[in-house]
Amino acid sequence: MPCGKHFTGRLARSTVPGVKILLIGASGLIGTAVHKTFLDRGHDVLTVGRTSGDLRFDLTDPEQVGALYAAASPVDAVASAAGDVPFKPLADLTADDFRAGFAGKVLSQVELVRQGLPHVSGSFTLITGVLAREPIVAGSVASLANGAVESFVKAAAIEIAPRRINAVSPTVVTEALDAYGDFFPGMPPVDLADVTQAYVRSVEGPLTGQVFIP
Amino acid sequence: MPCGKHFTGRLARSTVPGVKILLIGASGLIGTAVHKTFLDRGHDVLTVGRTSGDLRFDLTDPEQVGALYAAASPVDAVASAAGDVPFKPLADLTADDFRAGFAGKVLSQVELVRQGLPHVSGSFTLITGVLAREPIVAGSVASLANGAVESFVKAAAIEIAPRRINAVSPTVVTEALDAYGDFFPGMPPVDLADVTQAYVRSVEGPLTGQVFIP
Repeated sequence: MPCGKHFTGRLARSTVPGVKILLIGASGLIGTAVHKTFLDRGHDVLTVGRTSGDLRFDLTDPEQVGALYAAASPVDAVASAAGDVPFKPLADLTADDFRAGFAGKVLSQVELVRQGLPHVSGSFTLITGVLAREPIVAGSVASLANGAVESFVKAAAIEIAPRRINAVSPTVVTEALDAYGDFFPGMPPVDLADVTQAYVRSVEGPLTGQVFIP
Repeated sequence: MPCGKHFTGRLARSTVPGVKILLIGASGLIGTAVHKTFLDRGHDVLTVGRTSGDLRFDLTDPEQVGALYAAASPVDAVASAAGDVPFKPLADLTADDFRAGFAGKVLSQVELVRQGLPHVSGSFTLITGVLAREPIVAGSVASLANGAVESFVKAAAIEIAPRRINAVSPTVVTEALDAYGDFFPGMPPVDLADVTQAYVRSVEGPLTGQVFIP
């Protein structure tokens, strides 16, 4: 910006040309907000979900990740706001619960990157969360999954350049406090608007290998 | 220690009574050194390995984790120095490689904790590594596995008290530089003696939910 001017707010529209973005999990609370923000900034968004969206695939199945790219390739960016993990006390979890969390939030996002390399020219933005670093009771599978994805993002970044990859790692969002606030006593929530800005930063900015904590 | 005295070296023997420790992966470079250190400090060590050790089990199979505890229960502490992951460039990896890394270093150690709750009174010490935070080329499965275990350790700690759980997260060890040094250019190695002290700290000290970086 010109000397003497100060950046005083969020840019309503992107300063980069609109890009084609695959958005996974666009029907969730975060995905819906990210979808609107990307559209507002002039991007073309193809939504992907198991039971809703422009393209219907279950990305916990690596074969369906391949089918997604066969249907959508090429794209500029992939943004994921989807990941399912079981929440149970550690003593009640089974080995299959940990396998389900791995398939539902780790392998699903890893496969988006690994299989996306021939189809994606710009960036990958994956979703993790605060439980990677600050646990809650009954959240050990979520912690494990988030930690896995965050370390994977750092590792993948050094192998996929000039493509980029980042994680967005929010705490509980303000708009979900009614449902989930009791699990996060005293932990400051984050507004959805700040979470969406982290996605914007990842897709439009220059950084890679980062974990953005909005 | 008395006022005016300074701690000038490592205690050769434990100041806590000898405890019964299950040591997983006792035949590896780190496991061998940890084994000797535990014995020197007066502990009773039961070694566990797939093809060597006092007890022979393949802990990538959750059923064999149960069989291990059926054979060895009760124990005071579990220390793991074992974890296998494939090393390949990201573009050469398959979904099955990521599943193998999950089974080989994540679920195997998670099951030691989860299934160990009725059998272990003291502490769990799991192994991770520097790749959780500082990647190398062809190490994305290792990064993912290490990040998963480190976040799991933080989460499990709040649910298993008064039992404790920590991770030991070494970089390349000095004694392995001939074999692996080329993968860690310019990264300072750590001596095996310092890695073993991190295991001692985890087993004999009071901390929990920690990632010890020796």
